[in-house]
Amino acid sequence: MTVVSSEPLIPLLQAELRRWVGNGENLLELVCLDALFPSGKLLRPVLCVESAKSVGGDVGAVLTFAAGLECLHVASLIHDDIVDQDPVRRGRASTAEQFGIAEALLAGDALSMTGYTAMISGRPGDRVLEAVRVVVDALNRMCRAMMRETEIREDLDCGLSTVLGVIRGKTAALIGAACESGAILVGATHAQKGHLRRYGELIGQAFQMRDDLLPYTVDDRVTGKTAVSDVANRQPTLPVVLAYQAASEADRRRLTTVFRGDVDPVTAHRDVLDIVLRTGAAVETARQAHACVDAARAELDALPHPARLAELALSVVDRHR
Amino acid sequence: MTVVSSEPLIPLLQAELRRWVGNGENLLELVCLDALFPSGKLLRPVLCVESAKSVGGDVGAVLTFAAGLECLHVASLIHDDIVDQDPVRRGRASTAEQFGIAEALLAGDALSMTGYTAMISGRPGDRVLEAVRVVVDALNRMCRAMMRETEIREDLDCGLSTVLGVIRGKTAALIGAACESGAILVGATHAQKGHLRRYGELIGQAFQMRDDLLPYTVDDRVTGKTAVSDVANRQPTLPVVLAYQAASEADRRRLTTVFRGDVDPVTAHRDVLDIVLRTGAAVETARQAHACVDAARAELDALPHPARLAELALSVVDRHR
Repeated sequence: MTVVSSEPLIPLLQAELRRWVGNGENLLELVCLDALFPSGKLLRPVLCVESAKSVGGDVGAVLTFAAGLECLHVASLIHDDIVDQDPVRRGRASTAEQFGIAEALLAGDALSMTGYTAMISGRPGDRVLEAVRVVVDALNRMCRAMMRETEIREDLDCGLSTVLGVIRGKTAALIGAACESGAILVGATHAQKGHLRRYGELIGQAFQMRDDLLPYTVDDRVTGKTAVSDVANRQPTLPVVLAYQAASEADRRRLTTVFRGDVDPVTAHRDVLDIVLRTGAAVETARQAHACVDAARAELDALPHPARLAELALSVVDRHR
Repeated sequence: MTVVSSEPLIPLLQAELRRWVGNGENLLELVCLDALFPSGKLLRPVLCVESAKSVGGDVGAVLTFAAGLECLHVASLIHDDIVDQDPVRRGRASTAEQFGIAEALLAGDALSMTGYTAMISGRPGDRVLEAVRVVVDALNRMCRAMMRETEIREDLDCGLSTVLGVIRGKTAALIGAACESGAILVGATHAQKGHLRRYGELIGQAFQMRDDLLPYTVDDRVTGKTAVSDVANRQPTLPVVLAYQAASEADRRRLTTVFRGDVDPVTAHRDVLDIVLRTGAAVETARQAHACVDAARAELDALPHPARLAELALSVVDRHR
């Protein structure tokens, strides 16, 4: 497989983001820019552009739409950190922590609207509308999953299918929509759009599984998140639910105590880490993530230019942040 | 002028809202329905439909889009009550007060997306995109105005043009967009779209001026808001800034003390009420609202069926809630 670098794409996307968000002339722009930059790996816009290219499309036809996707994604992160009361994002203070809840809430709203503005600025109208429909549907699913997540807090009995549903809604839906919308905008066939949506949803699932696994594999200086955050929030993630299901009676009782919030965060995290490793839940989570990546790569077989997407699929499970 | 009743339109819009929001199967739908119903006067969707009719268009061509507008409007109210920490909306507990900040934030996001989903569901694509662009631009202006409002809190020296800018952004922009988008969807001429946008923006300004005046004219059992809310939030509104500019040195000092938050809310409101009435600021605010309504009605002269919109313009300044 040829290794194609995506390096030149990142600065293009960053310039496009700045063009739509503004250069910080007022408080709202400043807060939005602070949340956007330094940017992460720009996974969603990169996938949108690379999906377009994988079916022979041109970067220019999707660049603005892709930047809009990143705005909508970061807007959801800003709101997510308010919902989770998470003080840390990407290794530094979250927007809510830094500017206040009201300011973060409005910046998230503004960044969403900037995202929509960018997305609907393109032509031709019918393709743009079809692509926007796919994205809005994904955002709807994301929102429902975030609400579901608040409902299952502390609930270790919520079950595997619930946790997998949250993973699909919270992360996989928008990544699938990023890939599908890129295909739509360059006039891909119906079959190609389906392959790219499924590819995106599968690597989105893998991405979130790795994310849920990170607190139990590397320390928080590497991930840029507080490693104890999910446990501190008493949020049952995939490794935790797998561990709970496979655990001994004594370990189950310990997990139940921890998820009732009766244990200090550091001890809680150490105890959960111990059980997640001992029950094999960490290995099983990694296995499921790899299975998703394999399935994602299989979706690429029918595409004319699959190399870069195949490579990106692997990077999702190998990432360290 | 013929008085045309809009009564049959309200149940149509309510049914359309329920069709898009769902019937409360999960927590997110329940929270959204609670925020939407009992519905207010549905001013924005009614104006969208009546604008379409004023240029000879059909209700069926705009009903879904109009319902989407109401979703976006109510979503902004839900978030606004989080930003203002306002416990009361439409005479009962605000969404944040009733369900919690995280739940209200997510419900606002979900309701926005439902609004977008409804708006972009229509045909033909080019008209829908043009109408959505107008609405998103207005929402952008709304968001910036809400942020500006948090910046000028306590600042009685912020000036008349700043306060009028907030009024235009926070309220007039979306009402103007509601009217213009209704016109766009039924293929109005360029000139008709301009008249209807300006009509909407002018009655939107009048509407907000009346809203800002309500704490100084009727008691809070009538308005369904806590009459003391703006003062308690130390938010300089039009009547307050007009009063401050016209006030004696002693009254200015009193207002400054109140807006620093050094006075209990009830005394604060009584003092501000006294100064707003004594300086003539209340009368001047009402005069400006009426001038906006007159200018709005003048925009209707060139339209084929202006009667209902002319009537609605008057209702905006005569309302008691």
